[in-house]
Formats: sequence, C-alpha cells, structure tokens
Amino acid sequence: MKAAAPLTCPIVRSAHLIGDEWVLLVLRSLFRGSQRFDDLQKQTGAATNILTNRLTRLIEAKVVAKTPYQERPLRYKYELTDVGKGLFPVVLELMRFGNEWLPREDCAPMVLLHTECGKLTKPGQTCSECGGPLVLGKVRLLEPDAEANPEGKQD
Amino acid sequence: MKAAAPLTCPIVRSAHLIGDEWVLLVLRSLFRGSQRFDDLQKQTGAATNILTNRLTRLIEAKVVAKTPYQERPLRYKYELTDVGKGLFPVVLELMRFGNEWLPREDCAPMVLLHTECGKLTKPGQTCSECGGPLVLGKVRLLEPDAEANPEGKQD
Repeated sequence: MKAAAPLTCPIVRSAHLIGDEWVLLVLRSLFRGSQRFDDLQKQTGAATNILTNRLTRLIEAKVVAKTPYQERPLRYKYELTDVGKGLFPVVLELMRFGNEWLPREDCAPMVLLHTECGKLTKPGQTCSECGGPLVLGKVRLLEPDAEANPEGKQD
Repeated sequence: MKAAAPLTCPIVRSAHLIGDEWVLLVLRSLFRGSQRFDDLQKQTGAATNILTNRLTRLIEAKVVAKTPYQERPLRYKYELTDVGKGLFPVVLELMRFGNEWLPREDCAPMVLLHTECGKLTKPGQTCSECGGPLVLGKVRLLEPDAEANPEGKQD
C-alpha cells in the first residue's frame, strides 16, 4: 500500500484535490470557457467513463457546479465555482513550466493572450505587498507559527 | 489499466514530472534550503524508501542534482537545478490555493515572507508585457498555432 503524503500541508491538499492529469485537462477546457460534456470530451480526448468520473469528483470537491441548461431533453452544463477559478494560477504556472522546461519538438508551446493589453504574455509572480517580483532566494516559506513574528525576533 | 492523459499538453507534462504529493513535500524542503537526506526525511516525514525513490526520479528528470559534499565517509547533498527552481511558482500557487480554499482547523496556513520588502506576502500573477494582474476572464489560453495571429485577424 502506498503511503499518502500528509494533508497537513496546503501544497499537498491542493495537489490531492487536483488528483490526476485528466483533471488538469478538464480544468484547461473549463478555463477556456467550455461547459458541455461533449465539448469537454472532444477537447480532452478523455473516454466517457474517465470524464464522468473526473467531473463527479470535481463536483464533490465544489470545484465545478453542474446545472441544467435545457429541460427537454434535460441537459446539464458544467461551470467553475469560485474554488475552481482559484485553480487558474496553478494551471497557468504548470503551463509556463511545461512550455519552458519540458518542450517537445512535436508540440508548440501553449500560448496565453492577455486581452486587457492585447499581448501574448507569460505569467510572473509578484508580491501582494510591494508589487516586486517574487523570486526564489528573495522569498522564505515559513512555518505557520512564524506568522506573528516573521523575522524570528521579539519586539 | 488507467489511460494516461496525453503529454502533448505542457500542463500535463509538468504534472507528470511532479508525479505525486511526496515530490511536492521534497520540493518544499528543497525550496526552504534543505540539501541533506536526513533533513529532507525529517521535514517530509517520508519513509527512507519513498524519499530515495522520489529523489532518484527527480535526479533522472534533472530537477535535482546530487553531488558529494564530504569524502570520508562519502556524503551527498541534493540541490535544485534551474529546472527545479522553475517549479517554485507552481509550488507557491498550490500553497496559495490550499491556504485559501482548503483550510483545515488543525493546521495554520503556510506563510510566505518576501525578504526584499520584509512583509508577509501572497503570490499574485502579473502580465510579463504590461505588468497588470492576470485574471481569469482577461486572459485567453490559445491553441499554439494562434501565436502568429492572436486576435484571429489578418493584418
């Protein structure tokens, strides 16, 4: 039996929620605006049972909401909740990393358009407090109980 | 047999490289500056065989480099390569999502200190071109071949 990593870490909890790579393809389609089962299936290439299973899991996790959009015959659409929308930056960073560090000759990099400025863009992370870039070496992941005392000093 | 999601998508390739949740805990410790097997084991809580297996995979994927730091007895340290450092924003976004959307009463959120400005920070994504925030609804994930023609128009 494979031992599970502890869910006391928020990084692990997020990865656990995502679960597998099919979910990422489903999220990618949802982020592109697809809402119908047929469209999600076409775009992900997932078999019906795989797509149904992953959508069910995402609904249970409150990442996706399933609502009827047509009565006769009854048809449903799948929409991202606020929880689901919160996964957008995760997907963008996975995309950025894959484009940059795992290129494949037979696949062009995925492209992101910032419609606000009209340019093709790459996501970069900035500090919520000073707006400067968040770069490894200038950022420290602290133990949670360090929050009240980030410098490790007493006032 | 579980069908694998297609590696033609850079998002899937990145998730495939990470592989599982133990790898994320190992990366978290490496991002905090740990380099020795014993420290990684203490911080992740992983059994020896799990940690050895994940480090081996990370070395094969060129995410981690293993180099000797002592001759007698021979001892090794584990360091992030540039590929590995490229995973930092992915881990930060997983952390942000877990803190925000998957809180647990028995765990405080993980905290990030931006040493450049001295403040506790939350990562936010900004556009490489205009510096504005990248928000769902203002960003479009395009098919790769749209790169030359992002607006779908001919000049």
